[in-house]
Amino acid sequence: MKIVVLGADGYLGWPLSLRLMARGHDVVGVDNFATRKAVKEVGSDSAIPILSMPDRIKAAKEIHGFKMKFHEGDVTKYELLHKVLKEEKPDAVVHFAEQRSAPYSMIDVKHAAYTLSNNIVGSVNLIYAIMAVDPNIASVKMGTMGEFGTPNFDIPESAFVDVEINGRKDRITTPKFAGSWYHWTKVHDTNNLLFANKVWGITATDIMQGPVYGTRTKEITDERLHTRFDFDQAWGTVVNRFCVESVLGMPLTAYGKGGQIRGYLSLEDSVTALSLLIENPPKKGEYRVANQFVELLSVNNIASLVQKTAKGLGINVEISHVDNPRVEADTHYYNPEIKVLPSLGFHPSLKMADILGQVIGDLMRYKSRMEKFKGSIMPQTRWRDHPSADTS
Amino acid sequence: MKIVVLGADGYLGWPLSLRLMARGHDVVGVDNFATRKAVKEVGSDSAIPILSMPDRIKAAKEIHGFKMKFHEGDVTKYELLHKVLKEEKPDAVVHFAEQRSAPYSMIDVKHAAYTLSNNIVGSVNLIYAIMAVDPNIASVKMGTMGEFGTPNFDIPESAFVDVEINGRKDRITTPKFAGSWYHWTKVHDTNNLLFANKVWGITATDIMQGPVYGTRTKEITDERLHTRFDFDQAWGTVVNRFCVESVLGMPLTAYGKGGQIRGYLSLEDSVTALSLLIENPPKKGEYRVANQFVELLSVNNIASLVQKTAKGLGINVEISHVDNPRVEADTHYYNPEIKVLPSLGFHPSLKMADILGQVIGDLMRYKSRMEKFKGSIMPQTRWRDHPSADTS
Repeated sequence: MKIVVLGADGYLGWPLSLRLMARGHDVVGVDNFATRKAVKEVGSDSAIPILSMPDRIKAAKEIHGFKMKFHEGDVTKYELLHKVLKEEKPDAVVHFAEQRSAPYSMIDVKHAAYTLSNNIVGSVNLIYAIMAVDPNIASVKMGTMGEFGTPNFDIPESAFVDVEINGRKDRITTPKFAGSWYHWTKVHDTNNLLFANKVWGITATDIMQGPVYGTRTKEITDERLHTRFDFDQAWGTVVNRFCVESVLGMPLTAYGKGGQIRGYLSLEDSVTALSLLIENPPKKGEYRVANQFVELLSVNNIASLVQKTAKGLGINVEISHVDNPRVEADTHYYNPEIKVLPSLGFHPSLKMADILGQVIGDLMRYKSRMEKFKGSIMPQTRWRDHPSADTS
Repeated sequence: MKIVVLGADGYLGWPLSLRLMARGHDVVGVDNFATRKAVKEVGSDSAIPILSMPDRIKAAKEIHGFKMKFHEGDVTKYELLHKVLKEEKPDAVVHFAEQRSAPYSMIDVKHAAYTLSNNIVGSVNLIYAIMAVDPNIASVKMGTMGEFGTPNFDIPESAFVDVEINGRKDRITTPKFAGSWYHWTKVHDTNNLLFANKVWGITATDIMQGPVYGTRTKEITDERLHTRFDFDQAWGTVVNRFCVESVLGMPLTAYGKGGQIRGYLSLEDSVTALSLLIENPPKKGEYRVANQFVELLSVNNIASLVQKTAKGLGINVEISHVDNPRVEADTHYYNPEIKVLPSLGFHPSLKMADILGQVIGDLMRYKSRMEKFKGSIMPQTRWRDHPSADTS
């Protein structure tokens, strides 16, 4: 297959590109390097150094013989996206080219407006570019389990559910309630894509993914092929942040009481799952929803796992509960369905306990680099704070 | 009260400003005149000529003694909005400053992206400006009954409803499914405002209004005070378009089979209802939803009413069913609740049959002006059309 990966320079975009090439596909990457800049903007950087795009493509060629094509560009510019699709005529487009940090989206009005317009406009541009170039191109949307919040019902793998409202039956879009502007952009994207599916029959896979952790995939066999690894308060998700904290000998910063449950999966399992969804597209005109995670774990579960693993490596770390900067439930029901990926043959290869040692091991080599950005770990953006000082 | 009206130059913004001043309030208008330009962009213009903002403010002063303040500006510029709110310290902000045409939003990718980012960014800017200046300012959001689509359940006046999903109970946001990018921006705005209400407790009235028709309010007593009146395929809603068609002796262009039911109200009743909602704000921190309409009518009902009224004025017009350019159900259940406005003392003063004669009478004086834009009446944007020719 030929696959365009929008956001190919990202934490997930780069390893997925490698995996797809390893599986014999033609990959065309697109990125505007926004994440590289935005992570520096908050005073941080990837814990693991990464090469520039030309250099990582060169390394992939030398090490694995992969030939990857790349276009630098911004998907909020319709002309760019249209040109790439017209030139490349891909079978599928994977859309990772969004601002992906919840805390970054909550910094202030500028970051909120940027996140909303950037993500929504990029996704609508993709809808139009596919319909203009070839409606048979399958769109693969990266959603998030965070679109659902923590509902009291079992989270289905379907765009619509049957309900009864005040005694009358109807079929409604699966209810969502997100927890940050970033997460809301994913809900808005879902609604917009569902509308395009209804009106134009665009073929879509909407992946509701939980937080991803880890440093490696089967193809990341050399440090020149590393993917970025963020750990600061804005860009680092909980597992990756805990691993860095343990390497730095800092207490693990669990937010609130730590009862928040999410569905986690490793980077390796994420690229495996994504490849399966791309290689097995839905029927033409279908809107397929897939929940994507491996283990349901609470923040406290993860803190204990990291603490235990660190201990095995001779590092004693404490668990520290810091005020939760977010607005989220501390104790809640959580039961997402997962049937689509298993039906395609997905068998998770790794549990979190299996690879934390390898993650911490990888990170130890960059300890002095991480020390430099230590100050960026503690929460700086609190959801509840009024933007009262904001007169910009 | 002091009230900021964003979009004060619009069809509804101008008459509401007049009404609020007539009721003794201080009104500060804001507008960037985007609608004046966008209507000309599609080759049309207001059927009734309107004065420039400085001239209409002058006329309101001369005729009624009203003193209206005005700031020219774009609400997608946060600095402008923040400055106005900081200077004016209003009790409430009414937000009409959005791109309001469904067909315009569906023209192509540029119009889709503009509508999405313009409406969403303006609304998020307003949320932040209120929270920064004074969280006690009540926000009055103009939503639309179109956010709901045509559901099979009774449309409640509440942001949340109780449901059972696969045997488990939960409280979810009232289900929505919009029918154009424009209508989706209103859904996205609702979700964003609900989130701001949850996190910051912003006080909100979310008005789900049906289509508004008519040329007059009690304050529009002189032609210098007229509000715009659009009738072309992009900017004219069904009643106003039918009235113009009857004046021009053209067949009334009913879309599809004409069974589409919506909740209509006159301009006079709209400004009365809006004034009641503004003067009776919800409790601090409350998110109040009000459905706003007077009569449930189908397109065929309206066509018959206009035909009959025209006949009484000596004009014979035919009803012509044209291919529906939109994607909407032709026959459907429709039962929106309306309790909030009556509880505030709202008594509709006019039914459609009562004022169509006056509307057509007003329009007859501008027949030669309307003749010039006759070519803009037939549908030009068809929802189902692929954007295949779009290579811009």
